[in-house]
Amino acid sequence: MMIATTPKPPYYAVIFTSIKTEDDRGYNVMSTKMVELAQKQEGFLGMETARNELGITVSYWSSLNAIQHWKLNLEHTEARENGRSTWYKQFKVRISKVERDYGFESMNL
Amino acid sequence: MMIATTPKPPYYAVIFTSIKTEDDRGYNVMSTKMVELAQKQEGFLGMETARNELGITVSYWSSLNAIQHWKLNLEHTEARENGRSTWYKQFKVRISKVERDYGFESMNL
Repeated sequence: MMIATTPKPPYYAVIFTSIKTEDDRGYNVMSTKMVELAQKQEGFLGMETARNELGITVSYWSSLNAIQHWKLNLEHTEARENGRSTWYKQFKVRISKVERDYGFESMNL
Repeated sequence: MMIATTPKPPYYAVIFTSIKTEDDRGYNVMSTKMVELAQKQEGFLGMETARNELGITVSYWSSLNAIQHWKLNLEHTEARENGRSTWYKQFKVRISKVERDYGFESMNL
């Protein structure tokens, strides 16, 4: 997992924050599949993810339209339904427009 | 660590993604201090954080002005300088405007 390489702003970020249940059945298979599927969507720019008690996944998109398309994807909709019934205690989705970004890379890499 | 309780959009999110070096000296002390300090800033709304190889911290703010103030805070500036010289191999900061959000909470909590 790397820091996503994204174009010059503006672009969009979907911040998905979640707390899981104890029930992991099918979660990893679904999760891997959703990452692969997201990457194939038009307008997908990149994704970053980390999890401790709290999980944070940020996906980057070229437009609100691309995000809406991905939301309506059938397999994604099915995964979300299983998420609500099985895998997640709680989650929050925030759709945001990245207006500015900057980065740092150590010269000692 | 919980999912942040944020007001109705619009508000702002600072997405800080990082990869650490092996050098942890002073990191936890600084990290705890920065969270405490951020919480005291005017316009601070909440914060979420998770780390595996990749660390993601999202902080939420009422305005761009509040973010700018926090960026100029002296102790924060000092921490950032140590971050560049010691703790981080690479990081990226994305400043974004949250336009829409929705959530889910299981009834089986």
